[in-house]
Amino acid sequence: MRVLIVFAHPEPQSLSAALCQVAVRELEAQGHEVRVSDLYAMKWKSNIDRDDFPSLSSESPLRVASASKTAFTSHALTEDVREEQEKLLWADTVILQFPLWWFTMPAILKGWVDRVFSCGFAYGVGEHNDKRWGDRYGEGVLAGKRAMLIVTVGGWPEHYSSRGINGPIEDLLFPIQHGILFYPGLAVLPPFVVYKANHTSSSIFESTAEQLRERMRSIQATEPIPYRRQNYGDYLVPSMVLRDDIDTGATGFAVHQSTAK
Amino acid sequence: MRVLIVFAHPEPQSLSAALCQVAVRELEAQGHEVRVSDLYAMKWKSNIDRDDFPSLSSESPLRVASASKTAFTSHALTEDVREEQEKLLWADTVILQFPLWWFTMPAILKGWVDRVFSCGFAYGVGEHNDKRWGDRYGEGVLAGKRAMLIVTVGGWPEHYSSRGINGPIEDLLFPIQHGILFYPGLAVLPPFVVYKANHTSSSIFESTAEQLRERMRSIQATEPIPYRRQNYGDYLVPSMVLRDDIDTGATGFAVHQSTAK
Repeated sequence: MRVLIVFAHPEPQSLSAALCQVAVRELEAQGHEVRVSDLYAMKWKSNIDRDDFPSLSSESPLRVASASKTAFTSHALTEDVREEQEKLLWADTVILQFPLWWFTMPAILKGWVDRVFSCGFAYGVGEHNDKRWGDRYGEGVLAGKRAMLIVTVGGWPEHYSSRGINGPIEDLLFPIQHGILFYPGLAVLPPFVVYKANHTSSSIFESTAEQLRERMRSIQATEPIPYRRQNYGDYLVPSMVLRDDIDTGATGFAVHQSTAK
Repeated sequence: MRVLIVFAHPEPQSLSAALCQVAVRELEAQGHEVRVSDLYAMKWKSNIDRDDFPSLSSESPLRVASASKTAFTSHALTEDVREEQEKLLWADTVILQFPLWWFTMPAILKGWVDRVFSCGFAYGVGEHNDKRWGDRYGEGVLAGKRAMLIVTVGGWPEHYSSRGINGPIEDLLFPIQHGILFYPGLAVLPPFVVYKANHTSSSIFESTAEQLRERMRSIQATEPIPYRRQNYGDYLVPSMVLRDDIDTGATGFAVHQSTAK
């Protein structure tokens, strides 16, 4: 495999950084190629702005989607963004690793998504007609590749359970797993989540590390989350609403996973 | 009222910026004081890192929560962060306005949350014992104040409906409304969401602006979303799981709203 790990934690001496190294070493021990985008070490620019589009005329208002599409199509994106897009195209497996801050990814990783997932690359791809609504949600430039999250969380697993006060972890991660990763075509494996991350003894670390190694060894054999592909009949076009006869009456994020065996 | 609007869009000639001005003018016309944190204009620093904690020894690893608590307690946060915290304490109403990018807020606004919502200010407040689990989810430093989102969205309302492919808008906004705003005590009003934001004619703009003015006029009379307060008996401590006899069998984000009339 060719694995890209996008890593977002500011401290090299952190649990997150230690787990990132565990993953890298295990993948390399299995003979895989690994590249790491260590966003803090790279001093990644997070805020998408006019500087992202050097060929945009200074008199033109910045329309982010259209400026992004024009720059992507004319190979005029900034070098840092192009390098990340090349890494994504190089990889067959993409891992995003981050601490859960305020129930989602840190700003630096969101800024990687905002800037690297250009229009024409990760969205705004494909035709819109009465049968399909772009190449997205299971199709797109990154189709055929796999993705997975490694997430460290300060709270307890119960706090993120189906009736826990923070909301179920699978629902908190849905906008990332479905909305960011599945959208441009990636097949998303179940996440690796470490709870109580601020209170890790060395024995807990060792058992967590071993679980992570096992996940790294089994990536190719792991079944992706069965998100429904957009253009294969489950959704009405152009309302993109799930057909009434599928999971009738059910609502919420979970209806976008197939329950078929 | 004293209203703080935190605004996150890079283009002054955008629909978002125009709607922000509509809100400001209407609030001022009603006699309210308004301050705007225009994050792009302020060149807001998004990535929390060692520079956020100037008094942290260069030999100490950066533990974000503890560094944040130490700096907050000893008044050693950076000036930009302290100014935003002072604005939050000044305001009785806080509006976050942003375009929905990849199903959540832009990196620059996430970076405002990551940096301004310090430990000791927005989390890590209050006692943890067998009756309560900190001052959060309805209690905390910002209790007694109101908050509201103004969100512009590229897609159609149907795409964000209860069975729409993007997921229901109320669930996509839950991690922000419940996890970021309600957490430190803010009462959260229903959001103002503008769909098809990239295709706004002047007549659509005028009717949208009028709806927004009406929301601004009625802020004080609008009922907040009835999120359940953490420490008032609905949740078990310390698992923070909703009691079995409340909304029995239900799961997902919606169980954290009271259905009592």
